[in-house]
Amino acid sequence: MSEYFHDTAAAAEFRDEKMNKVNLFESHRLFCDVYCLRPGQEQKVHDHADNDKVYHVLTGTPTVIIGDDRSVVGPGTTAIAPAGVPHGLRNDSEEDATLLVVMAPHPRPPASQAE
Amino acid sequence: MSEYFHDTAAAAEFRDEKMNKVNLFESHRLFCDVYCLRPGQEQKVHDHADNDKVYHVLTGTPTVIIGDDRSVVGPGTTAIAPAGVPHGLRNDSEEDATLLVVMAPHPRPPASQAE
Repeated sequence: MSEYFHDTAAAAEFRDEKMNKVNLFESHRLFCDVYCLRPGQEQKVHDHADNDKVYHVLTGTPTVIIGDDRSVVGPGTTAIAPAGVPHGLRNDSEEDATLLVVMAPHPRPPASQAE
Repeated sequence: MSEYFHDTAAAAEFRDEKMNKVNLFESHRLFCDVYCLRPGQEQKVHDHADNDKVYHVLTGTPTVIIGDDRSVVGPGTTAIAPAGVPHGLRNDSEEDATLLVVMAPHPRPPASQAE
């Protein structure tokens, strides 16, 4: 298969220090990453004024925080943080967790493709 | 769970006539849909000059076409069609298939949010 195709399980790489982001694709329009969280790791709650973010759980049971909602969810759940709504992640489980994450537009676009 | 969370398996709805698109979220920045394909259904190959599309296989084994690549892929595969690259889907298997699809920016943004 070509560079357009990604095996998200094979792409996952974890770091002991903190949540790891593995980039699959980026342009000024969007980025698509696999976020990899060991037990205890997190993405602190934050927001983006002008970007929407899609979290899709691939493996594990991370806690996804969006607005006032804080839910432990498993594979198959898609959580979407519209622009301006605070959001974050925590892996409070005892297993690794991975999520496919798409944000649009890219908040820090690759220089060669910035508009 | 709040309106930010979606169970992609529960969201899936199929139509006998053609591939069905179930929208989970849309803004002018992106749309996020679940595409549902019965055996034999397809999304014809097409392209978008200024939009990137992410196809993530949720269930089944659809054929994903991007550029010159035409691959039968299963759950966990993410295929990304950059702007300008022709892409499409076919379900040549004997089981239903579903994909999470994100496109950015939205090619036909909701009127209230168009810029």
